[in-house]
Order: sequence, then C-alpha cells, then structure tokens
Amino acid sequence: MTAPADCSGACQPLHEPALAAVAVVRMLGEQAVPARDVLAVEEPLEIRLSYVRQGKRRARTIAITMRTPGNDRELAVGFLLTEGIIQSLHDVLVVHPCKRGNLVRVHLREDVAVDLGRLKRNFYTSSSCGVCGKTSVDAVRSCVVRTLPVGSPVVPAEIIHQLPHRLRSAQAVFDQTGGLHASALFTPGGDLLCLREDVGRHNALDKLIGSQLLTRKSLFSESILLVSGRASFELVQKAVMAGIPILAAVGAPSSLAVQLAAEHGQTLLGFVRQDRFNIYTGEQRIAQTLAPSLGGRSSC
Amino acid sequence: MTAPADCSGACQPLHEPALAAVAVVRMLGEQAVPARDVLAVEEPLEIRLSYVRQGKRRARTIAITMRTPGNDRELAVGFLLTEGIIQSLHDVLVVHPCKRGNLVRVHLREDVAVDLGRLKRNFYTSSSCGVCGKTSVDAVRSCVVRTLPVGSPVVPAEIIHQLPHRLRSAQAVFDQTGGLHASALFTPGGDLLCLREDVGRHNALDKLIGSQLLTRKSLFSESILLVSGRASFELVQKAVMAGIPILAAVGAPSSLAVQLAAEHGQTLLGFVRQDRFNIYTGEQRIAQTLAPSLGGRSSC
Repeated sequence: MTAPADCSGACQPLHEPALAAVAVVRMLGEQAVPARDVLAVEEPLEIRLSYVRQGKRRARTIAITMRTPGNDRELAVGFLLTEGIIQSLHDVLVVHPCKRGNLVRVHLREDVAVDLGRLKRNFYTSSSCGVCGKTSVDAVRSCVVRTLPVGSPVVPAEIIHQLPHRLRSAQAVFDQTGGLHASALFTPGGDLLCLREDVGRHNALDKLIGSQLLTRKSLFSESILLVSGRASFELVQKAVMAGIPILAAVGAPSSLAVQLAAEHGQTLLGFVRQDRFNIYTGEQRIAQTLAPSLGGRSSC
Repeated sequence: MTAPADCSGACQPLHEPALAAVAVVRMLGEQAVPARDVLAVEEPLEIRLSYVRQGKRRARTIAITMRTPGNDRELAVGFLLTEGIIQSLHDVLVVHPCKRGNLVRVHLREDVAVDLGRLKRNFYTSSSCGVCGKTSVDAVRSCVVRTLPVGSPVVPAEIIHQLPHRLRSAQAVFDQTGGLHASALFTPGGDLLCLREDVGRHNALDKLIGSQLLTRKSLFSESILLVSGRASFELVQKAVMAGIPILAAVGAPSSLAVQLAAEHGQTLLGFVRQDRFNIYTGEQRIAQTLAPSLGGRSSC
C-alpha cells in the first residue's frame, strides 16, 4: 500500500499494532506542507465473561472499552481484578482472545460468585439505583475492599524524582504519537518492572496490572505505580484494588482521588517532575531528609 | 474551617464549586515543605431519564459519570444530544437538578421514542451483542447519524493559530489546578462563544454543547470546537452529533478519531499550537495562502 495523496483519513497499520500512519497537511504559519503523521490506534474491545450462576454457565458482555490494540488478555484480567469481579488469577480458567480481534472471552471457575452489580458505576444500569448527594460518592466507593500494608515500603524522595525520566526513556510509542497514556510499575529502588501504554489511561493501568497477574509476578504490595497524566478517582480505585501502596502521577490529582487515597492509606503523589512533587496522602512512605539548614544530608 | 495540619486528604470546598483546597507536603529536591494546593473537584453525577413507552411513563438511570460539579443541567442535555437520545431541546419537557446534588432528572415529551440501545457502547450491556473485528467498529459508529454542511465555514489558518491562546486566557480554573480539560466554541472569526471545563474531557464537551442547547444558541454548524487535550473517537462522535464542522485539538488525535471525522466530512485539526497545526481531514475548510516564494500574502 502507498500513502494516500491527501489527508483523506485513511490510516495504514504499521509494524507495531498500536500505531498507524496517516497523510496530513502540516500548517506552519500560513504555509501548508504535505506530511505523514503517526497516530495511536484506537479500537473497541469487548470483554465477554463466562461464569456459573445457579448451576448454569452463562455468557455476558461486561464491557466495551475504546483501547489501543495489543495486550488484550492483560487488559481483560486487569479490568476484572480492578473492578472487583475476580480476586486473583486463581478465579480464571482461561482467557481467550478472538482471532478476529476486538473480543476477549474470559471463563471463570464455576465456584466464583460473580457480582455484576459492581460494574454499575461504570456502565449502564437497569434499575434506578438512587444515588444522590453523599450517597452517590459512597456508591462509587463501595467496590473498593482492599486494605494496603501500613507504612511499607518507604521510598527516598530521590527515587521518586528519577521515575518520570525512567518512564519516558522506556516509552516506545509516546514520542511517536503524542497520544498515549502510560502506566509503569517500579520497585522501591526505582527499577522498572513493567510499562503499558494506551489511548485510555484506565486501560493502560488495567493492562499493567493484568500483565503482572498473568505472569504471576503480583508484587503490587511492594511497588510504586507511576501514571503519565492526572490521578483520577478511577485510577486510585484501580490501584487500591490491586494493592499498590504508592501512586505517583505526573499530573494533578482530583479531589475525590485524594479523598479515596486517604481513606485507604495509599500514598498519593502529584505533579511528579524531575526535582519536585507534592505528597497528598500517606507521607510516611516517603523518606524525607531534613532541610540543609538543620543539618540534613544533601541530595548529591 | 481551618486548613488541616497534615496531608490527611481532607478537601475543603472553595467559593468556586469546581475547586477544593488541600494541605500537601511539597518535596523540592530532598526538602519537605508544608503547602496548600488547589484541586479540581471530581464527584459522580447520576442522569435519570423519565420517558414514555407503550403509554406508560418510566424512569431510568442512564448514566453515572465522574464530573466536576457545576453546569449539571448542561451536562445532562448535552449528554442526551451527543449520545443520540434526544434530537433537540424540543424533546425535553424539564431538566431538574436534585437539591441534594449529584442527580439530574430529565423529563422527555411523551412523543419522544427513546432507544436506550444507543447507550450500550458506553455502558453495561445486558445481552451478548457480538461485536467482533470490523463489526465492533461499526457498532460504536452506529449512533452517529448527523451530516455536516459541506465546505462551510472556511477559516483562515491565522484564526486557528490564535485559538489556543484565547482558550488559555479564558480558562478560569485550569491554571489553578492543572487538572481540568477544557472545551470551547468559537465563531469562524475566532471569537469565543462559550467555554466549559471538567475533570472528564467528554463532560467538558457535553457541558459546552448543553449550554448552547439550553440558551437556544445552537450555532454549531457555523462554529469551531477547540479541546484542550487529545481528540479521541468519543470527542469526534459527540462533535459530529452536535453538527460541529471543525474540531481542533491541542493534542494528538487517535486513528479512529481520524477515520470517523473523514467519514462524516468533519475537519479535524491536531497539535494546534501558537504557529502550527496538522490538518487530518476536511482541509477544504482551512483557507491556505500560497507559500511566500510563490507570491502569496504574508501572515502579518
């Protein structure tokens, strides 16, 4: 296939399934220059769940999410864990991506009690659930059931300062498209464990968590999560559900993200840049040296 | 109320309902400095629809979205239009925000035929809808039914160059929190018609569209939409549903956003910065002067 001659919107897949090339007109001041651009691919993924209820196996579509193709098995099991449908990989018999793409079937063990009501926050609800005022906040919080280990791990600030650079160095796609969110898991020493990217921030996190589940590396309770954008309520919720004690965001947190992190004892960091960040909750997990005027050690 | 002494996650409402203050520890290098930060408020909003089917009035919760409080009536009617539930404000009898907050009831005229199946893309589906491969892309596209006016309006590139600065100048909240998405509507001459902000990019756009519906100013077919972040499939879909011919994004578009814009004849611009942008589709709506070497006029 050759590149289209105008910006007709015809995208061509590249070697990397997450990328597509497109012809564009680049406007520089008043001048129009024909050019090629690389886009992040966005396609729907259906997650279909097979589970046993009242002695009978049932199949049900539980989500259709707009995601960047790739790592779909990870996305499916990560989504199921962070939305509270499964407790661990032990609940899963098989994860089966459809060969035609854009569909993943997940078969659960017959003894797993599935509560699809947990999904009602994110999806279409078939009954009037009467959330209003304070109650509604409680409703969206209700599916967060995990507790985090208190006071562990403890990470020096200088490790946190290094994380954004390490994330950017590891990002294969972002610099080409400018359009992907990243989630990365680090050890308390700042070593990168895993990185996932997606057009959706929640998908990038679900893929990251799913990758650890599928490789049975679930070291969540001793790790640091770094996300490339803002820290929303949803990201805090998913991180708490996975048991991750420290969530660091390059961008700003929302008010509800801070409240939820506080309630669950999660350390929430925002505006994490090269030499600075804000601690919103859980400061006991960040080792703070004293200011130099008080005799503390320097950061060199 | 006084500010909490530590970063306990207790958020205090400010005068502006979209903002909350919180105590943080600011890490500068290795030094910890107590400080105050301003957060974007994020809370759930339930949209409950009252409609008539088979001669009987019914009420149903059709969405629970995490949004920044404020302009909730706009959000509700904008959501209903961009998701294809209503065709215009004429379909709506009354929009009634609950006094306790976080709930908006929308009563439709009894002759409005409601197809809740349209919502299945975004929300929980009760049947196996069998999206797979190419079909799934068609499924999410299926609710986009509008057609845009061909070749109108035509906007000089120099007007587009000015839009990001005008957006930033008008943004009341972003500079304080770093955590809000903005959507703004401009005339073809670059004059700001309306601006809305939210923690969710789709909510900012729904509020913007709803504001124009509620004030009966629906000049969508002659306006330019500027969004502060990326252009996703969902934003293109909502803009097409409102009949907006030009969508300009400060960030990158996704592949599906470009495809959908091309199919509907929408002009899609990405990476819109002070002196440059990319035209992905619909270049006939951008007036391009010739390069200076060919005798074209300068941009001064």
